[in-house]
Amino acid sequence: MLIVMQHAAAADEVQRVVDTIESLGYEARPMPGAQRTAVGLVGNDGRVDASRLAALPGVKEIIHVTQPYKQVSREWRDEPTVVRLADGLAVGGNDVVVMAGPCSVESESQLLTTARLVRDAGASVLRGGAFKPRSSPYSFQGLGIEGLKLLAKAREETGLLIVTEAIDTECIDAVADYADIIQIGARSMQNYSLLKRAGKINKPVLLKRGLAATINELLLSAEYILASGNEQIILCERGIRGFDNATRNVFDLAAIPVVHSLSHLPIIADPSHATGRRDKVIPMARAAVAAGADGIIVEVHPTPDTALSDGAQSLYPEQFEDLMRQARLIAEASDRAIAAPLPSQVTT
Amino acid sequence: MLIVMQHAAAADEVQRVVDTIESLGYEARPMPGAQRTAVGLVGNDGRVDASRLAALPGVKEIIHVTQPYKQVSREWRDEPTVVRLADGLAVGGNDVVVMAGPCSVESESQLLTTARLVRDAGASVLRGGAFKPRSSPYSFQGLGIEGLKLLAKAREETGLLIVTEAIDTECIDAVADYADIIQIGARSMQNYSLLKRAGKINKPVLLKRGLAATINELLLSAEYILASGNEQIILCERGIRGFDNATRNVFDLAAIPVVHSLSHLPIIADPSHATGRRDKVIPMARAAVAAGADGIIVEVHPTPDTALSDGAQSLYPEQFEDLMRQARLIAEASDRAIAAPLPSQVTT
Amino acid sequence: MLIVMQHAAAADEVQRVVDTIESLGYEARPMPGAQRTAVGLVGNDGRVDASRLAALPGVKEIIHVTQPYKQVSREWRDEPTVVRLADGLAVGGNDVVVMAGPCSVESESQLLTTARLVRDAGASVLRGGAFKPRSSPYSFQGLGIEGLKLLAKAREETGLLIVTEAIDTECIDAVADYADIIQIGARSMQNYSLLKRAGKINKPVLLKRGLAATINELLLSAEYILASGNEQIILCERGIRGFDNATRNVFDLAAIPVVHSLSHLPIIADPSHATGRRDKVIPMARAAVAAGADGIIVEVHPTPDTALSDGAQSLYPEQFEDLMRQARLIAEASDRAIAAPLPSQVTT
Amino acid sequence: MLIVMQHAAAADEVQRVVDTIESLGYEARPMPGAQRTAVGLVGNDGRVDASRLAALPGVKEIIHVTQPYKQVSREWRDEPTVVRLADGLAVGGNDVVVMAGPCSVESESQLLTTARLVRDAGASVLRGGAFKPRSSPYSFQGLGIEGLKLLAKAREETGLLIVTEAIDTECIDAVADYADIIQIGARSMQNYSLLKRAGKINKPVLLKRGLAATINELLLSAEYILASGNEQIILCERGIRGFDNATRNVFDLAAIPVVHSLSHLPIIADPSHATGRRDKVIPMARAAVAAGADGIIVEVHPTPDTALSDGAQSLYPEQFEDLMRQARLIAEASDRAIAAPLPSQVTT
Repeated sequence: MLIVMQHAAAADEVQRVVDTIESLGYEARPMPGAQRTAVGLVGNDGRVDASRLAALPGVKEIIHVTQPYKQVSREWRDEPTVVRLADGLAVGGNDVVVMAGPCSVESESQLLTTARLVRDAGASVLRGGAFKPRSSPYSFQGLGIEGLKLLAKAREETGLLIVTEAIDTECIDAVADYADIIQIGARSMQNYSLLKRAGKINKPVLLKRGLAATINELLLSAEYILASGNEQIILCERGIRGFDNATRNVFDLAAIPVVHSLSHLPIIADPSHATGRRDKVIPMARAAVAAGADGIIVEVHPTPDTALSDGAQSLYPEQFEDLMRQARLIAEASDRAIAAPLPSQVTT
Repeated sequence: MLIVMQHAAAADEVQRVVDTIESLGYEARPMPGAQRTAVGLVGNDGRVDASRLAALPGVKEIIHVTQPYKQVSREWRDEPTVVRLADGLAVGGNDVVVMAGPCSVESESQLLTTARLVRDAGASVLRGGAFKPRSSPYSFQGLGIEGLKLLAKAREETGLLIVTEAIDTECIDAVADYADIIQIGARSMQNYSLLKRAGKINKPVLLKRGLAATINELLLSAEYILASGNEQIILCERGIRGFDNATRNVFDLAAIPVVHSLSHLPIIADPSHATGRRDKVIPMARAAVAAGADGIIVEVHPTPDTALSDGAQSLYPEQFEDLMRQARLIAEASDRAIAAPLPSQVTT
Repeated sequence: MLIVMQHAAAADEVQRVVDTIESLGYEARPMPGAQRTAVGLVGNDGRVDASRLAALPGVKEIIHVTQPYKQVSREWRDEPTVVRLADGLAVGGNDVVVMAGPCSVESESQLLTTARLVRDAGASVLRGGAFKPRSSPYSFQGLGIEGLKLLAKAREETGLLIVTEAIDTECIDAVADYADIIQIGARSMQNYSLLKRAGKINKPVLLKRGLAATINELLLSAEYILASGNEQIILCERGIRGFDNATRNVFDLAAIPVVHSLSHLPIIADPSHATGRRDKVIPMARAAVAAGADGIIVEVHPTPDTALSDGAQSLYPEQFEDLMRQARLIAEASDRAIAAPLPSQVTT
Repeated sequence: MLIVMQHAAAADEVQRVVDTIESLGYEARPMPGAQRTAVGLVGNDGRVDASRLAALPGVKEIIHVTQPYKQVSREWRDEPTVVRLADGLAVGGNDVVVMAGPCSVESESQLLTTARLVRDAGASVLRGGAFKPRSSPYSFQGLGIEGLKLLAKAREETGLLIVTEAIDTECIDAVADYADIIQIGARSMQNYSLLKRAGKINKPVLLKRGLAATINELLLSAEYILASGNEQIILCERGIRGFDNATRNVFDLAAIPVVHSLSHLPIIADPSHATGRRDKVIPMARAAVAAGADGIIVEVHPTPDTALSDGAQSLYPEQFEDLMRQARLIAEASDRAIAAPLPSQVTT
């Protein structure tokens, strides 16, 4: 941490900064400059409260040299985290994992039809919302436990693993009972009570980036899960808020290489929520794979025109097949491969 | 709702839109134009799922004419909601209510000292966090129930009402037991489980705008509370995310007249979290009153240099007194007045 | 400037940074830390090209301690710049200067009617576009030289000084011939050829903040004008781009105290372009004065319903009078006053 | 255009809107609804000034159904524009054109070394700034005409075509004399005088998206060029301003499919300026090709550590070769190919 003094800061103001740093138990290193003095705080373990120093007289600004997170950092652990899902299927290794399915679980036939078609096209994880966070209280809020049971049934029939969202501490245990990956949605990225609970469960967690979250904040939220004991974290870029409504959000694909350089955690991308329109989903899904994503999560619906939510961004089955074909070639360009689905659990 | 067709949309594509609207139980009104046809959906009660229509072939875009919220709208109820706190103290009437206090409750002496000084300067509500949502798991997370008890004690001594944050469904009942106003923080604005719980409690709720929330989304979150049965809602502008780190957030003061024109709910402003630096808090607090805010909520600390959180944005006692003096004059310029504090509950 | 090394940076990588700094003619001061080494560059005169250092192996990031601008800085010159317009009228002193008028100069009668009414209400400067930058090539582009002549005529009749925009290096000399203040619009804030030309002219310049410009960038653009020889610069906050279309732009009023702390230059605010709707202009104009603006610039039109541009944001005459009355009271709350208009140049 | 009335708008207010539309020469079509009336304006040729209608009493908002641009629209012309550069090299057809080179032209040896190496790796156009728009007046501003001559010399030696920026109306003729493609930079996207001049020149124009420009505004700026007579326009996504400083800008790759659906003009992408750091440039360049860009423009420097500008984002020669290899495979995944460079003009 670097405490930058004002141009006109007096010597005793600098001394007070030095004293405060030392009273906090760290070492202070003043650095006089041509225009101003800066004081380095040495030994920062990430627990220094900057506002204590920012408030001292003569202080111009505080510059953070050390990141506020620890265990998620690549400097804490250099080798990539590989989140093992089952039987060789893993996120964060060489394979790119494709998760696909409807926005919401609507009915058994809708879910099973979708599950079969995404599996046949090569997806290995089935997505589908049972508990839905909706911005309007009057929108369809999901099938709840009933939806979780349908997801489990689809897993049994198709061999696809299940990812589905836990929207609060009330439903997370039920979600953990049925799902293979517990999703924490963008709106919940800073729901710290939920993060702590997810950290106590021994299941992989898919943590989506909040609409206005910096990558640092995403990593700090992951730190909450890790600090509570769960290391199986998959991050997800799903679009951030921007000024142009030409697409629903701005798909910040550079977050993928940024996360890969700052953290050992894997990161996947969600082009469906990022763009909101199906004709943009396909090129952006390709781009995510090209950018080095460890996976993609895509909405597919057998008949998008009748979907109960987000129909406009769901791919038609043929479009998804086409995408899978292109994604394989693009993954190969970076010497990666699309993960193959696991076999079905039912003997046929 | 207006369904805009592509330039080259065929007649049967327009017809399919018309049929879909009618199958949903609404009236369709096609409007052929020079460049394209648009189809009006008449009778929208706010429950139409636009994605059903957006996904139809030939559809270019969906334009929302009706707002997605209902009960919070000024068109639903024209006269302003006045949230009555106690004995004539109310938010949303002619008075501007000043809420002040430390970021966090730290100790009895810190809280009582602050409470007395903000009361003497003219504040009528005491703010102070007992449960703190912190972006890092390693930061001070608040005193919890102990903090609530100290707030209650400060109320007893000073007559100040209490506003404090409920960060999850676990703590909200305890918060409701002690506080006069339950704060839902910016990070929780779309924590729908928490909003629904707040809607079941018969206490005023202070709902802060999320960092990346549009005003429409803020109103939709308020709609959750209202739809669950609680009409005593105070909105709060506290800064939105921007591209310039010259201030912590962008203080979107225009949200005040915008909310006043769209909704009957009162709105206050928080210049402390919006700007993050005390020398910016004072002019922005003045500006909030000038912009027509129904109240302001400001951080004050007896010794900001030693605060456990957000010291850099807390006002010194003298600064707060000065601000109160200016705020009174500015409120008068718009024929309003600063609300007077209630008398202390202890006989002295 | 602080060059932060990666956690794992080798000693010879640190040495190479030191050598490079020294080869550039500055002093290097290595600062080993608990997690990483940082190297201070001492003596930075604002001309160091950071990318030279950022590209060296082992470098994690470059942190700027010194601001990139010089002459506009309050550290370069502590006392506020007062831009003297004429006969005691000045921007940046104790008076708050009100500039008002139509968006575009449309006709002699429109301009003179407006000039008289804003003068009678107490404005001292007349605004009005003769050269209009329009986002569509098919929109009204202004009356050009003819408009400038009408502005000069209005000055003669009313005593109001004139501010009008120069959109390119072709028209700036003509604008300088007729106007008292040369406006550089938001879209031209980084038109460096235009800034340099404005720096060669001995007339006050009103430099508007670009839609996506940080305050640092605004100050750097002012530095271009100052570095070319013109010190008479008035900055202007006029709204920045945001994610919510509830208002046209986000009116970043905190820019006012931020500029006042970083620079000696005065800053005014434009609530008309910031909000785009007249019912928002009035509270935001009040808020600008309360925030400490050295002036406001407001669109007023005698009959806004028939304006050729921006009718929706122009105030009705009565609204402007009302605003002036409130602005006077608010200015007084901070011990300032609204500047009085100069007398007319024609003897009546 | 749809004029949405307030809920409580009176019949005569609706009638006044109808009358105003008709007085402007268009047809009005009132559409009464459950909550409010909307009035359609039929026959909009893109020249209606919305603010005339927005200002009428009882009007809630104006909704634009027709885009404000015309000739750049895919509805104006359905088949893609192919900008022919020379001898079969074209942007907007099946080939993906790679433009590469240094940020600035610094010296003959630097430029020729770079030109040869990017050509050998497969680039077909050489980029390099001779006139540099710099945010600080104290930064290196480019070699000017001397730089243009060096670029011409590099073309002669290598067969690479030249793209370089014209920063103002003073230098554009010289740029047009030497370059094959005239670049209009992001800061000049709304410099309408410059756009009009570019529209009078019979050379391809590369128009970069402004930092805070919506895609609509980018297309409107292209409309200026087209309306002035020049149809050879290549658009360029180069990153927009965002709230996270983890990368310099936010690379909005979804702009590529969005532009392709709205306009017939080709669009390329600039991952170097978008991200600002070389380790992010490579994955983002791959992503741009995967997203369907008609070309990429990348900074390469033989010795980035000593570059006079933007060294941190310039690729090392080996990195560029590697990128080209991957880009070829990714282009093939979408049945496209990287354009081959033209032969050198000198006989060797």
